[in-house]
Amino acid sequence: MAGQFLQRLCNLITTSEPFDPETLSYVRRAFEDTLAVACAGWAEPVTRKVASNYRGGEEMTPDDPSGVDSEAAAMIYGTAAHALDFDDVHQVSNTHPSAPIVAGLVTAVKEEPRLAPRTITAFGIGLACNVELGRVMGFAHYEKGWHATSTIGPLACAAALSFLYGLDAKGASHALALAAAQCGGLQRNFGTMAKPLHAGLAGAAGLRAARLARAGLTGDDDIFGERGYFDLYSGDKLSTDPDKVEFDLYGGGIAVKLYPCCYNNHRNIALAFEARKALEEKGLTVEDVGKVEVEGPYGAFMALRIKEPPRVGSEAKFCGAYVAACALIDGEVGLAHFEDDNVSRADVRALSDRISLTERPKGQDKVTRDKAPVKLTVYNRDGEAVVQIERVAAPGAPDDAPTPEQMEAKVRDCLDYYSRNTGRNFDYGRFQAFVDGLFRDPSADEQPSLALGDD
Amino acid sequence: MAGQFLQRLCNLITTSEPFDPETLSYVRRAFEDTLAVACAGWAEPVTRKVASNYRGGEEMTPDDPSGVDSEAAAMIYGTAAHALDFDDVHQVSNTHPSAPIVAGLVTAVKEEPRLAPRTITAFGIGLACNVELGRVMGFAHYEKGWHATSTIGPLACAAALSFLYGLDAKGASHALALAAAQCGGLQRNFGTMAKPLHAGLAGAAGLRAARLARAGLTGDDDIFGERGYFDLYSGDKLSTDPDKVEFDLYGGGIAVKLYPCCYNNHRNIALAFEARKALEEKGLTVEDVGKVEVEGPYGAFMALRIKEPPRVGSEAKFCGAYVAACALIDGEVGLAHFEDDNVSRADVRALSDRISLTERPKGQDKVTRDKAPVKLTVYNRDGEAVVQIERVAAPGAPDDAPTPEQMEAKVRDCLDYYSRNTGRNFDYGRFQAFVDGLFRDPSADEQPSLALGDD
Repeated sequence: MAGQFLQRLCNLITTSEPFDPETLSYVRRAFEDTLAVACAGWAEPVTRKVASNYRGGEEMTPDDPSGVDSEAAAMIYGTAAHALDFDDVHQVSNTHPSAPIVAGLVTAVKEEPRLAPRTITAFGIGLACNVELGRVMGFAHYEKGWHATSTIGPLACAAALSFLYGLDAKGASHALALAAAQCGGLQRNFGTMAKPLHAGLAGAAGLRAARLARAGLTGDDDIFGERGYFDLYSGDKLSTDPDKVEFDLYGGGIAVKLYPCCYNNHRNIALAFEARKALEEKGLTVEDVGKVEVEGPYGAFMALRIKEPPRVGSEAKFCGAYVAACALIDGEVGLAHFEDDNVSRADVRALSDRISLTERPKGQDKVTRDKAPVKLTVYNRDGEAVVQIERVAAPGAPDDAPTPEQMEAKVRDCLDYYSRNTGRNFDYGRFQAFVDGLFRDPSADEQPSLALGDD
Repeated sequence: MAGQFLQRLCNLITTSEPFDPETLSYVRRAFEDTLAVACAGWAEPVTRKVASNYRGGEEMTPDDPSGVDSEAAAMIYGTAAHALDFDDVHQVSNTHPSAPIVAGLVTAVKEEPRLAPRTITAFGIGLACNVELGRVMGFAHYEKGWHATSTIGPLACAAALSFLYGLDAKGASHALALAAAQCGGLQRNFGTMAKPLHAGLAGAAGLRAARLARAGLTGDDDIFGERGYFDLYSGDKLSTDPDKVEFDLYGGGIAVKLYPCCYNNHRNIALAFEARKALEEKGLTVEDVGKVEVEGPYGAFMALRIKEPPRVGSEAKFCGAYVAACALIDGEVGLAHFEDDNVSRADVRALSDRISLTERPKGQDKVTRDKAPVKLTVYNRDGEAVVQIERVAAPGAPDDAPTPEQMEAKVRDCLDYYSRNTGRNFDYGRFQAFVDGLFRDPSADEQPSLALGDD
């Protein structure tokens, strides 16, 4: 007799209805955002190296994985989507939720286009699974050192694909058991190419699990039971009793990234932009800045593990002082700031040496780290505090959501970046057609429907 | 600055010399045994289902993976090798050490035959890595619920392939970091097809890690450091300080299985054979047996999680009462006992209902479970103990090693089983030639050498 958590998750997988239009547009935005950042990350060294490892991988384009083995294709999509650390985040679960799920879904749907009408609901189920696993394990899981994107991602992706493939509850529970056996990824790999690879591995693992379960492979009937997933992967303790979890299709709380670096930087960036304006209004410049102190709740900067001046772009994304310095000096943070050739700028280095990030002690804030304020104080050369500001909302989060214009601009930027770095054009119209094609069966005459037909 | 554990492991990988002849024959035996059981497991449902999932997989034969993507081939080899639970074991690490390593090695060497002269040393390095990781984590790791074969296997396989590919210490440390990110597998999956799949996943993960590292993918410089592999995967505590570990090429302690079921059954089987003889000598038969009690040290039967009468062969392998009953009644335990059609025999069922397995409390034995005795007592229908015997050594373990005749008989049995179930002949001579081909470069005129040549 399986526990409530598995039963409810399988219930979600086997009975979910389509979204209401408003949620649908939100979920589709997350899907499109993920594909756009995958395009941007397509020519990054990590993606190229992964692709070079697979037959046909080097020729694969974002809209055509047909020449590549499907698990390898999913690995390439997931790695590309996370290569620039520009993909969306979910703060409660401490994950990049969409990259692994989209990686598995795009691969599967390109392989079997008749499944396209089920894509968006499948994605919503994957997100819901990701959100609730994160809620159950809470911050303690991440705190221990796990990279939650890839310890949760295989399960979320397998849940999505179990729906896509129309597995029944038993098949879905096996897919989840096979996915759980492939969960892994350590924060020690942050700042190296392994981090984006983790997202690719998670997508490939979820796809593999669902395909094997569809082929009849069995796993445990309740991988969330005793000595199962939670017992092995949780931190000191669970945040929520898994048997109390109620699943909502999609789950909510996804934050779109507006800057291509670790999300732990995002509130700092917004504060730095504000501080920059405040300095201007006072007639001050960066030259007048003595030091900058950033203070946040416990865990707010945990992923920013690069404390020395970054040597390459992948390190710069995880260096809090570097990113804050870029934001203060330039008033913008873009892809160019994380190109290897640009991370050693003398002006950024000089300022970042004077920026400190501090977390308040554990327990001091009575709310989760995404609900507690980050404070930024700028001191002048005489040690006087000249700017003191704080904020709770992170840019791109549901409480500070991107506008449609911001979204379109981000997608266009990503496509430009793809074209510039690959020498292949991929314009906005073709991209929209590609995304549309993942949501509707091109061979169907009628409107998209959830029904899988007779088979 | 990496810790001693990583430094010494990388030192083993980058400086190992060939084996002395005696050890070499021991290591080659383990390699050959693994390939033989992979042949036997080739036509099992789990292997067929995995193979059917990959392009060319269904046509792949044990000696020719050329039509299949290399990671898929490694997954098929590893799954096949563990499909019958007939592959070798290492008791201190609680693993099936060879299956994942051989899976990765065979795939890589068939792809690049010029590497063949390095195969056997690579295998020894993988085994040593497996043995020492197991020694560091001890039984607590297994006790927590991890399937050590697949939580250790990716690292062991990556270590082996790092040597095979001639990676330097930095490359090897990246391969290990990428492998660590793919460690997983839960004992909850025991008794299902997922268990052998775990071994296949581990082999594919190790291969993937080493190939990606060779392609230039980076990972953390010391995945065994703080918040790294040991902190995430160990049980309550480590058995040995990782920085105190000294690596020996090969490591020792590998036990060859003589019966195709969970190794936790092996001492029980040997005792049951002995009890059967003792009953015969007393003029008694199984009909006279009232009940049978088997008592072992803490953890001795932990993997025997099937407590109800088994429904299929994969469950029967993990049912202690079933296996002991077969041994007592038939005086042998062979592949036929674990075919699905045979697991519901009435005579076996009647006896197994009267067999109990009990573990002594934790801490009662002052030595590890493989060094503490298992006791078997047979009571007659009047409740009198008529046979009382005990043993420490497990059949096939180094202290009760198989003879060359037993080994050849096992290999021949496995090849017969392969031929019977696939309809394809694979005779002993061809098998030996296949194994030889994995150890020497067919294009080289000279004797096998460790040198990789100029490239």
